Amino acid sequence: MYIGVSRLRVFTDRAPELIEAFTERTCLVDRYDGFVDREVWQSDHDPGQILMVSRWLDRDRFKADMKSEDHRTSHRRIAPDLKRTINLDSLEHMHTYEVVAE
Amino acid sequence: MYIGVSRLRVFTDRAPELIEAFTERTCLVDRYDGFVDREVWQSDHDPGQILMVSRWLDRDRFKADMKSEDHRTSHRRIAPDLKRTINLDSLEHMHTYEVVAE
Repeated sequence: MYIGVSRLRVFTDRAPELIEAFTERTCLVDRYDGFVDREVWQSDHDPGQILMVSRWLDRDRFKADMKSEDHRTSHRRIAPDLKRTINLDSLEHMHTYEVVAE
Repeated sequence: MYIGVSRLRVFTDRAPELIEAFTERTCLVDRYDGFVDREVWQSDHDPGQILMVSRWLDRDRFKADMKSEDHRTSHRRIAPDLKRTINLDSLEHMHTYEVVAE
């Protein structure tokens, strides 16, 4: 199993909009071979810290999605006004992991 | 759903030991009411970065576990020599999240 985590930071009062945008966004990804599931995690100590967590069968399926036109379409669905308020939590905001034990 | 993430850092050559220690550790937690599952994630870009991810039905069940004697027992199973090599990745190494969208 392969995990992609995007760490985003928004002003706390915009957090519900970002979560809603993610929930409503195109479900194109769901039809992808190798896609398992995705969730949005919100820190309870720091509600402006939002993690987008997607799970894939392996790294190759994840990489294929990241390069796809569907992925770009999905990102375009986020309203520009909201997009401007999102700050990436670190220079490299996308973190990836292998699940090595369960 | 409530998530607890411990971010740990070890020297890369000790990572397999840490993962093995986690896999072999007491399964006391598995019998807890409200415990869903747990995984170990290893960064593929930075293999010394290890995340312990546990999932709970809600924050209260998570908090009850953190205070329990079983939790301490589980931590004692990690060999002292290995424990000394673990550096917490940040001052507050335990991060907690509510799952707000799926």
